[in-house]
Amino acid sequence: MAEIAVLGHGVVGSGVLEVLLTHKDSIAKRAKEEIHVKRILDLREFPQLPYNGLFTKDFQEILDDPEIKIVVEVMGGLEPAFSYTKACLEKGKSVVTSNKELVAQKGAELLALAQKNNLNFLFEASVGGGIPIIRPISQCLAANEVTEIAGILNGTTNFILTKMIREGMVFADALHLAQQLGYAERDPSADVEGVDACRKICILASLAYGTHVYPDSVHTEGITAITKEDVGYASAWGGVIKLIGEAKMLENGRLHILVSPMFISRESQLANVDDVFNGILVRGDATGDVVFYGKGAGKLPTASAVVADVIDCVRHLRSNRKILYWEDAKPDYVEPWDVTPQDVFVRVTGEGDSDSLFDRAQQVFPKAVRLIRRDEEPGEAGFTLPQIAEEELREKEPDLEKQGLRLANRVRIADF
Amino acid sequence: MAEIAVLGHGVVGSGVLEVLLTHKDSIAKRAKEEIHVKRILDLREFPQLPYNGLFTKDFQEILDDPEIKIVVEVMGGLEPAFSYTKACLEKGKSVVTSNKELVAQKGAELLALAQKNNLNFLFEASVGGGIPIIRPISQCLAANEVTEIAGILNGTTNFILTKMIREGMVFADALHLAQQLGYAERDPSADVEGVDACRKICILASLAYGTHVYPDSVHTEGITAITKEDVGYASAWGGVIKLIGEAKMLENGRLHILVSPMFISRESQLANVDDVFNGILVRGDATGDVVFYGKGAGKLPTASAVVADVIDCVRHLRSNRKILYWEDAKPDYVEPWDVTPQDVFVRVTGEGDSDSLFDRAQQVFPKAVRLIRRDEEPGEAGFTLPQIAEEELREKEPDLEKQGLRLANRVRIADF
Repeated sequence: MAEIAVLGHGVVGSGVLEVLLTHKDSIAKRAKEEIHVKRILDLREFPQLPYNGLFTKDFQEILDDPEIKIVVEVMGGLEPAFSYTKACLEKGKSVVTSNKELVAQKGAELLALAQKNNLNFLFEASVGGGIPIIRPISQCLAANEVTEIAGILNGTTNFILTKMIREGMVFADALHLAQQLGYAERDPSADVEGVDACRKICILASLAYGTHVYPDSVHTEGITAITKEDVGYASAWGGVIKLIGEAKMLENGRLHILVSPMFISRESQLANVDDVFNGILVRGDATGDVVFYGKGAGKLPTASAVVADVIDCVRHLRSNRKILYWEDAKPDYVEPWDVTPQDVFVRVTGEGDSDSLFDRAQQVFPKAVRLIRRDEEPGEAGFTLPQIAEEELREKEPDLEKQGLRLANRVRIADF
Repeated sequence: MAEIAVLGHGVVGSGVLEVLLTHKDSIAKRAKEEIHVKRILDLREFPQLPYNGLFTKDFQEILDDPEIKIVVEVMGGLEPAFSYTKACLEKGKSVVTSNKELVAQKGAELLALAQKNNLNFLFEASVGGGIPIIRPISQCLAANEVTEIAGILNGTTNFILTKMIREGMVFADALHLAQQLGYAERDPSADVEGVDACRKICILASLAYGTHVYPDSVHTEGITAITKEDVGYASAWGGVIKLIGEAKMLENGRLHILVSPMFISRESQLANVDDVFNGILVRGDATGDVVFYGKGAGKLPTASAVVADVIDCVRHLRSNRKILYWEDAKPDYVEPWDVTPQDVFVRVTGEGDSDSLFDRAQQVFPKAVRLIRRDEEPGEAGFTLPQIAEEELREKEPDLEKQGLRLANRVRIADF
C-alpha cells in the first residue's frame, strides 16, 4: 500500500481522486501496489464528498506523516506550492505536479533537490495535459539531438483563433464565447497574452537542451493584436494563424526561443490542430518530425497524466528516476529574440487603394511579395518579407511612415 | 562501460551503429555510462567499414561472452531471430529489437522469459519507427483505460494511397512509383496485403489490453482492391481512404480487431497523415484522443528508437523494467470480425445508368444513402449503409445479383 497526499482539491485535484477511485484495480496492477490517498489539503470544506474525512487544512500534518511518501501538488500558482514542494522533497517525499508555473520558475532547483535526496519530482501533466510529451522527449528521444520544438501549447487561444479562422469572428467575440464555454477565465490575460504558453515552452526547452530557461527571458506575444484582416491574409498565403511556442538550438550554441502568433502552412501537421486541442512538434536529427496531439487541458486528461506519474513514483519509491534533469540557467544562453531573421508577414495601413499602398511599401521593402485577401479594402495592404529580423523591421518603420504607411501588424512565418 | 552486441547489419543495424557513433557523448551522458558495441553478427563482410573488426559470423561467440549484457536484434524475420533472442534471455542478456514479426508472434513468451530472469525485452522500434508509442501507451497512459487504438501503421501503403488520392493514380502505378523510390520492396505483398500493419496492431493491442493477440487471429485486408472509383466516392463522402489497423475493447469483454482500408473523415486527425508517415490514435477514457505522428520507418528514425531502448536497458541493467508485459492469448478473446456492425461504403456495378443502379440497390438496402463521385460513369453507383455487419452484407449479395448488381467493393467507415 502506497500512501499519498494531494495538495489542492480544485479541478485537477478532484480529477486525480476520480481517476484513482474509478481505476483503482487496474492502477494497483500497474503500480504493483495499491495507491491510497491518506490526506487532501484544501482550505475549503467538501462535506458532501464520500472521502470528506481525508481533508485537512494543515500542511504540516502531511509533511510530518512518515507514511506519506508521495505528494501530489495540484494547487497551481507559485506560492505556497513552491514552499510546500520544497519542504516535501527535503523531508524525503517525492512530488508529482501539474503546476507549470512552479516547474517553469523553480524546475532546476527542485530537480536538483530531488536528485540530491534520491527522490522523484515528476511533472508530465504540466505541459500538454493528457498528451504524453515530457517522458517521450526525455526518454524515447534520448538517442536524438532535438533540433527544434514548436507547439500549440494553449487550448484557450487556439479555440479563439479557430473561431476567428473558421467563422470569421473578431477576437473580442471569440474570447467572449470562450469565456461562456468555460474555456477562458474571467481574467483571460495569462492565456491570451501568451504567459501560459511561455511557461510550457520554457519547460520543454529546459528538458530538451538541459539548461533552465526562465519565462522572463523569453519574448512573449499573445494573440490580442491579431485581427480578422491578419487571418484573411494568412488564408491568402495558404495557411492559418496559430499561437506558437518555439525553441530552436542555433549554430552559435544559443537558444532561439519565443512565443508569438505565426503563419502556419496548411501542409503543416500543426495547421489542423483546432479548437482547444494542443499539438507539439519535436524535430530530431534522427527521427525527423514527430507530432503529439491531444487535449492539452481539462480535468480528466490532466489528472490522468498526474496519476501516471504517481504510478511511476510508486514503482521507483527508493530511487531517483534520473530521466528528468536540467542545469540552472546560464548567462547569454538565450539569443535576443529580435536579431534572428525569419520570414515575416506585414500588414500596413494608410491613405489610398491597396495597389498604391503596396507600391509604396515596396519602396521600403523591394523584396516584398504581395498577398491579396478576400474582401480586401482600400487603405490596407499585406505582403511577406523573406528572412528579416525584428530589429531590422523596426528600423524600417520611419521609412514606411515617410511613405504614409503605418505598420499595422507583423506576424512571423513558421518554417515547420 | 556497457558492452553490447548487434545482430544484423542491414538498414536498421547500420543505423544503430551510426546513431551510437554520432551521438556517443550525449548518449553516454543519458545512459550514465559509455555504450560500446563489442560484436556485430552478420554473414556478410564489410571490409570498407571503420569498425569492420567487430564483425563475427558466429552467434555463439556473442552468446558466450559474459561482458555482453545487452543484445540488439535487428535481423528481422522470425528465425533465427527468435532462437537467438530466446538464447540471449536465457543466458542473462537483455534484448532490444525492432522486429515486429518477432514481437507479434512471440511477444508473450519472450516477455515472460525476460520477467522470469529479471531482464528487459524492449521493442519501441517495432511499431511506428521513430514515433514514441510503446512507452507512452504503457507508461504515460497507465492511468487510463484505452478504449480504442487506430493507426496508419504502414508507410508504404500510405504512400500509395496518398498518390491515388492526391494525383488520381491507379494502384498499380502508385505501387510502381513506390518501388522506384525504394518505399516498397520488389515483392510488396507484406505491405500491400496488410501483413505488416497487422503485426503492428497486434503488438499495440497486446500491450494496451494485456493479452497477446496473434496475427493469424486478425482479419486482414490490404489495399490491392482499392480503385480510383473508391477514392472518388470517399472524396464525395468527405474523406479519404486509409489502411487502418484498429483494436477496440467491446462491452462483451472481447476484442474487436482488424486491418482494412477505411473511409476517414477529413476532420479526423488521421486524414492528414500522408505519404510515408504513420499516425496512431489512442483513445483513452480519461485523456480522450491522443495522436502520435511521424516517420514510421527508415534507417535513422528506427535506429534512434532502438538506441533509446538500449539506453533504457543500460540504466536498468539489473532489473526488469516491468513496464512491458502481457499474458498469452486466451481462447474466444478475439470477436469474429464479421459480426460487428459498422457504417460501410458499398460500390456496385451493373447495366444501366447510376440512377437506375442506385434505385435497384435501394430495393435491397432501403437505408442506403447515395454518394455521387466526380466523373461518375454509367454502370456504377456508390452509397453508404449505416451499422451493418460484414456477415449481413454478404447475405444480401444474392439479392443484389437478382437486381442485376455486382458488389464491386465495400469499405468500412471509421468512427474516429
